[in-house]
Order: sequence, then C-alpha cells, then structure tokens
Amino acid sequence: MDVQQAYTRLLEHLGEIDDLQRAAAVLSWDRQTNMPPRGSATRSRQAATLGRIAHERFTSEETGRLLAAVEEWAAGLPYDSDEASLVRVTKRRYALQSSLSPKLVETLSIAGAQGFDAWLEARATRSFRPFRDAFARLVELRKEEADALAEACGAACRYDALLQRHEPGMTVAQLDRLFGRLKEVLVPLVRRIAERQELVSDAILHQRYDESRQWELTLEALRLIGFDFTSGRQDRSVHPFTTGFGPGDTRLTTRIFADHLGGGLFASLHEGGHGLYDQGVPARFARTPLYGGTSGGVHESQSRLWENVVGRSREFWSFFLPKARALFPEQLRGVTVEVMYRAVNRSTPSLIRVDADEVTYNLHIMVRYELERDLLDGDLPVDDLPEAWNRKMEAYLGVTPPDDLHGLLQDIHWSRGGFAGFPGYTLGNVISLQLYERACQDRPDIPESIRRGDTSPLLEWMRTHVHAHGAKFTPEELLQRATGRGLDPEPYLNYITRKFSELYEL
Amino acid sequence: MDVQQAYTRLLEHLGEIDDLQRAAAVLSWDRQTNMPPRGSATRSRQAATLGRIAHERFTSEETGRLLAAVEEWAAGLPYDSDEASLVRVTKRRYALQSSLSPKLVETLSIAGAQGFDAWLEARATRSFRPFRDAFARLVELRKEEADALAEACGAACRYDALLQRHEPGMTVAQLDRLFGRLKEVLVPLVRRIAERQELVSDAILHQRYDESRQWELTLEALRLIGFDFTSGRQDRSVHPFTTGFGPGDTRLTTRIFADHLGGGLFASLHEGGHGLYDQGVPARFARTPLYGGTSGGVHESQSRLWENVVGRSREFWSFFLPKARALFPEQLRGVTVEVMYRAVNRSTPSLIRVDADEVTYNLHIMVRYELERDLLDGDLPVDDLPEAWNRKMEAYLGVTPPDDLHGLLQDIHWSRGGFAGFPGYTLGNVISLQLYERACQDRPDIPESIRRGDTSPLLEWMRTHVHAHGAKFTPEELLQRATGRGLDPEPYLNYITRKFSELYEL
Repeated sequence: MDVQQAYTRLLEHLGEIDDLQRAAAVLSWDRQTNMPPRGSATRSRQAATLGRIAHERFTSEETGRLLAAVEEWAAGLPYDSDEASLVRVTKRRYALQSSLSPKLVETLSIAGAQGFDAWLEARATRSFRPFRDAFARLVELRKEEADALAEACGAACRYDALLQRHEPGMTVAQLDRLFGRLKEVLVPLVRRIAERQELVSDAILHQRYDESRQWELTLEALRLIGFDFTSGRQDRSVHPFTTGFGPGDTRLTTRIFADHLGGGLFASLHEGGHGLYDQGVPARFARTPLYGGTSGGVHESQSRLWENVVGRSREFWSFFLPKARALFPEQLRGVTVEVMYRAVNRSTPSLIRVDADEVTYNLHIMVRYELERDLLDGDLPVDDLPEAWNRKMEAYLGVTPPDDLHGLLQDIHWSRGGFAGFPGYTLGNVISLQLYERACQDRPDIPESIRRGDTSPLLEWMRTHVHAHGAKFTPEELLQRATGRGLDPEPYLNYITRKFSELYEL
Repeated sequence: MDVQQAYTRLLEHLGEIDDLQRAAAVLSWDRQTNMPPRGSATRSRQAATLGRIAHERFTSEETGRLLAAVEEWAAGLPYDSDEASLVRVTKRRYALQSSLSPKLVETLSIAGAQGFDAWLEARATRSFRPFRDAFARLVELRKEEADALAEACGAACRYDALLQRHEPGMTVAQLDRLFGRLKEVLVPLVRRIAERQELVSDAILHQRYDESRQWELTLEALRLIGFDFTSGRQDRSVHPFTTGFGPGDTRLTTRIFADHLGGGLFASLHEGGHGLYDQGVPARFARTPLYGGTSGGVHESQSRLWENVVGRSREFWSFFLPKARALFPEQLRGVTVEVMYRAVNRSTPSLIRVDADEVTYNLHIMVRYELERDLLDGDLPVDDLPEAWNRKMEAYLGVTPPDDLHGLLQDIHWSRGGFAGFPGYTLGNVISLQLYERACQDRPDIPESIRRGDTSPLLEWMRTHVHAHGAKFTPEELLQRATGRGLDPEPYLNYITRKFSELYEL
C-alpha cells in the first residue's frame, strides 16, 4: 500500500467512525428534545452500542497501522496543511484514547453511573455524605486514568493529562498563572460591586413575557447574528445545548421562562455562538477529526462573544430594543437602551454558577478548578471537600452555601467524576475578549456595524481567524495566529473593569 | 461453547445489530420531520454507514455459526416458544440476506439511485420514456436478485422469492386466487358506484379548517384509539409514516391540509393503527428480530382497521362528531352523524392510488401486482408497460390516465425497482376485516363500545391475537391462530358490498 492509498484508507476509516459518532449525536439530541419518557432505557443501549463500536474502531490496530503508514509523508508537508493537521490531530487523539485499557474504560463507566445515582441521592438530602464514597472511588479511578494518559502524552501531572482531552497543549502551570491574575482583579471588583447593588436594577426583565413571543425574539436574535436556518434549527430543551451532525445540520436548543425575558434570549445567543462556529467549519473537513472546534475553551469563546460581548452591549440593544419592543410593547413601554443595558448587566455574587454574571462567573470556575487540581495532584482529602468549597466561596465571592446542594453538589460534572472541563468556561470568557479586541483592531467598524444591526464584519473576522481552521490547531497556536500572542487575560480584565466600573460608579 | 452460551451470544449479537438499525430509523425519522434542507448529503452517508455495518454483521459468519450452534436445541422446543421462534425467524432472514453477493447489493443500490433520478426526470416530462432504460436495468437486476433469493429459500418463481421479504410464506398462487376473487366482486361494484355519484357528497369536508385545531383533533383521535403518548409522539411530515425505535418510543407523523378535514384525521388514524401495533409488541422481544410485526400486510391490517373499519363507521362518528364540532362549530353546524358518515365514505374511481377509497383501492393494487408479476416471471416487455398500465386501469376502474405522470410514474416504489411490496396494502384491507369479524364474534360488544367512545375491547383483542406475537409467525400462521382459518377475502367483500350497497342504494 503506497502512502496515498493509506491516506485515502485512513480518511474512509475515520469517516465511518465520524458517521457513528454523529449518529450518536442525533440520538442524544432527540433524547433531549423529543423522546417520549419511556424511550429512555432503549435509547441508552443504542447510544452505548454506537459509542462502543466507534471507540473500538478508533482505537483499533488498523488506525495505528494507517497512521504509521502516513506519518513520515505528513511530517514533510506544511504544518498547517490539511493533511499534516489531520494526521497530527488524529495521532494525538489516538495516543490518548488507545492508552486506556477497555477494562478501565468500563470500570469508569460503571462508577460514573453509580456516582450519578449517589449524587442524586445526596442532592435529595442536601448533603455531600451520601455521595462521598462513590465520589472518592471516582477520584481514585480518574487518578488511574490520568496516570495512563500522562504516560501516553508525556504530561507532567495528572491534571495536565486530563486537560489534554479538553484543551490540547494547555497545562496547570498556565492555568495557575491565569487564575492567579484573574483573582487579583476580580475578587476586589466583586467586593466593591456587592456593596453598590442598589445602582443597577433588572426589574424590567422580571415580568410576564409570552412564551411564543419570546421564541420569536430568540429566532430574531439568531437571524441577526447570522445563524443559517437552512443549515440548522433551534428547539427547546431543559438544558440548552448545541450539537452538530456534520455540514448543513447544526442544532441549537434554548429554554424559555414565562416570567423572565433574559433566560431564553441569552441562552439562544450563547448557543447561537456555538452554532455559528459549527456552521463556520469548512465542509471539506467533514467526516474527519478536523471537523470541529479547536477546544472546549475556544468553542466557549464564541458562545460568550455573542452572548456577552455582543448581546450585553449598548450597540446590540440600540438595534435590538425596537425589535423586542415590537413583540412586547406593554412590558417595554418607555424602556430606553440605557435602562435595558443596565438591566442585562446587573452583577451580584451568588451561590450558583449557572446564574452567575460576567464578573462573578470566573470565580465560580476558579473554586472548581483549584479543588479538582488539589484532589488529583495535591493533598486535598475527599472528606475535606465540602469545607474547602465553602471556604473558597467565602474568600472569592463573599457568600457561603447554606448546604451542599447549593455548594459542591450543584453541577452535574462531578457526579461522574468529570474533571478538567470547567477551566474551558473561563478560557472562553478570556479568549472571547482577546479575539474581540484584535477583531476590532483589524476592523474598527465592528461596534458601529453592530449598532446598525450588521454583525457580519465581526462574524467574518471569526470565520477567517477561528472557524476556518476547524480543529487543526491547539488553543495556543490558534491565538498566536489570530492575535499574534498567546493566551492573555488583560483584554478581558480591561473590558470587565471598564464596563463594570462605569455601571457601578467605582 | 454450550448451547445456552451460544444463545446468549446470539442475543447480544442480534441486539447490537438492532441497535444499529434503530439508530438508522432515528436518523430517517429526523430527516423527514426536522432536518434542515442542507443536512441531506451528510445524513445519507451516516445512514448508509449504519446500514452497511448492520448488514455486514447480520450476514457475517458469526451469525451463521451461532445459529448452527442453537439450531438443534431450538428445534426441540415448542414451535411458538420465544426461543424456537427467534431462531426460526432469524434463520429465515439470514438465509435471504446472506444469499445476495455484496456486489449485487451495491449494484442494486447504485441502479436504484440512478432509477430515482431518471424517474424524477420522467415525471417532469410526464412520460415514461426518460425512465425506460433505468427501469429496464432495474427489472433485470431484480430478476437476478430474485433468482438468488429463490435458491436460498426454495421459492417456485421470482415473485415468490421477492415476496418473502414482505410476506413470509405467501405465494403468487395465493395472491392470484385472492385478486381473482376480489376482481369478481369489486370491478362490477365500482362500475355501479360510478354511475350513482350524485348520491354521496363530501362537500362538508372541503372547507377551511384551521390547521392547529385539526392538529388537536388528530391528537384527540389518537388518544381515543389508545395510542400511548408516554411511549410515543406525533409530528408532521410531507408523507405520513410510522417508525419505532424500540420499547417506549413509537413515532407517528401526519400531514394537515387547511382546506380538507379528512386528510390529516385519517392519516393520523392510519398511522395510529401502525403505532398501536408497534406499542403492543412485548418489550421482552426488544433488540431481536421478533420485535416487530408479522408482515407488511398484517401491519397494514392494523392501520386499515383503525382508519377505515373504525374511523369510517357510524359508531365512531356517533362518539367523535361532538369532539369535532367543539373544535369546528361553524363548519360542522347542523351536520349529523349520518351526513358525516356519508361524507367520509364517498367512493369514486380515480387515477391516483393514494387518493383512492375503500372500494377502489384494491383495484389500484391489482394493476400494480399483475404488472410486476408479468415483468418478473411473465413475458411483459418493459416497453409495453405504459400501455399495459392504461389498459388495466380502464378495465378495472374505468378510467384512463391522460399521461404517465398520472399513470405508472405516480408511485415512488418502482423508481428504485421496489417490487412485491404493493400486495401488502390489499392484504391489509382483507386481513383487517377477517380479524375484525372474528374479534366481534369473540366480543360482540365491540361496535357498541366504540359508539360510547371506548375502543379498548377491540384493542385488547388485537393485543392478544396479533400484537402479542411480534414477528413470531407467518401471516398465514397468525390468521390460523387468530381466526381459525387462513387468508379469506369474504369478510372484506361482505363488508364492502353491504356498506356501499346501502350508501349507493344498489
């Protein structure tokens, strides 16, 4: 078999695996949007079968053999060529996935299911205790998994190893620097905002807003930011999410609250950002590991960009308020752009991550990141976790959970021992501003065009500098190419400080 | 490996194949209900991959080996036991599917796609000519396929061989007898009805009927017949269909016409009948070839039962008319049960099968059946097909198509050379009455209970005598068990003659 034949065969092989994975994504989407209640057990088995076959095929010797056959050839091609990138990315994922024994994967899956059940029980009692043993077991298993991954990818510590699946190339050293810098600025900022709560009100958002009209408003917002409905759709689900079934089919979901205008609209803008990214990846990457985003954090940068940087800006509301008022003339009578701008930017320290605002959100992530890190690589005993959680919440946000339900039991992630995914949310916030700042340097007309309801200059910049690369690069490589420097929290910190100092007259 | 291990392994093996096939069904359902227009190409590839892997696994040597290991053991068990039935049905399907070379399957798939394109072109010109060559090729390939199948299952002719995939155990000899008898009664009946068209009017159905209220009415009808919405749902699609993803998840679709009350309601009752069958198959058959219906014809008997025998009865409308009037007080003001009963039972010879009524429908099927049979086993040349079609339409229905679009180009089935599926529609009509007659003998309260809005006695009878068996039996075996005799057209002919003689005062 010559190298071209091997490469063609590799593409076919990866294409089939992608077909199986995307089919599983269709099953998952349907489960969350349409499936009748009693369909759950059958669906789980079908999804497990698809996942298992895809995993078996990807970690098979065939993959290793084909990669070996094209490796030398690909190394001689330009680093950013499609072929070299495909081989590089596939090799990295193959090394990680094939480093885990089927036995460990299965044990983790079972322990995850047990963890989830124990987590539900613990939530019912509002106490960590019923979850404690299952969680301790998950921590041990994740350590074992991380050790295996670390050996395969040469990571320096367990957290680095787990992080590779979410943020290729990133390390704890980088994250410690990042969170250290964020902490310096955000902790005192949050304290000062907490003292001046009376300055900003979001009362206008909390009225009765007809659900079907809110739905219309979310579609209007998605059209405005450029989501292509001939290649995607929006539905409703309990937890908003975005998924993609390949070129031409991107699915968003949102949720609508009858007594709150913000919930649905910002969920749609957030998922719409993910969706624009999915729609912007070139179709020629279809059915390969390049068809996707750079990393969890870079994907989140796109959702945060449209949700926060655009969706909570004066420019956006200058254009969008009349649209909203046309649908809700009574509720929004006499409301000015300034009143709306303040309402959608109210900041308040709270206990629950998913309710957090632009300023406080990263502190919630920092709590989780530091605890995960200390559980895996440090000396934090599982039994000390609830107290450690509460101590950090008090230190960073100035609030103390009344019970574990409002503390470390709030997120689903840990119920299955899902570690190293949280930093992506903060990376998203930080990267969104780093990219936006550079986009505005290249295209100074961006803010004004948004004010006119034209978001295409911003979208075009993201298409060219982010979406066009699919999954070719690591986050660091992407940022270097797009902005000329590596991960940098300063644009985000400048933005937050400027915006909220003005709002809260600091 | 002992026989119990082999049987357990066989169940696992078949379970995985079923998972893949049901996943493909989810993809197909989504394509027809939700998929954005540009998702089509990607979706086709994903469905093809799932289908291919499922087919490869089912026709693999592993299946043959496991079947051989349990064959003797299963032969010693009662014929209707789950185990004996599973092995028998799986063996039959394995023999058929593994008799075809991968080369022939692929060639047929390509010829089918080319046939479909040529068919579309022909429809645009309203002439058979552009479709002629592709169709001739499909006929030759189907002959080749039928010869291979015939060898595997010992069929006496090609049509018998193709029929095994739709109606296990049935033969051309039986169908010829069936259609011969139907022809004797129906052809003269249709002639006499055609002469007395002024006696029955369906004008009340052709008014403006609000679409969302019609949707409500279809849900009301589905609830009435006992469709379980905790284990299924209804959506809209261009062509109504039913599909099942396993226990707890049955999907129906319907379509609504704003200017016609009957279209959506009877489509929902029809698909609801299929859906009740799907929901009635025992969950213990899940992930095996027994989880499904007896045959296409028996499945159609359930849809026709609820659509026609129930849905077009005086008893049904006695209960349902007030429901319809509550939704459409203006359109149905002063309309009596008798007026509605006559409207929904108007019969008229027409050119198009899907618009046909209870009396004329089987004549449309007879045209197709006889032509297919003569193409495959007789001496009908492809070039004579259009003329043969028109001649038969004139002979059976007394109408002549103005062009091939209203003639042999009307159904999608032949576009890919899909033969031997049409008889199932007529079998459905015939079997629905054979079962209904017997059900009413066992439970004489059935008509009166329907009049009170209680369809459960009829459904319970079908659950016990049809649904409970899943795919264990052939149609003939099922009918023998349920009614004490084999396929018998007389209940259907008695019903049709009585009903339409009264309506048309014959």
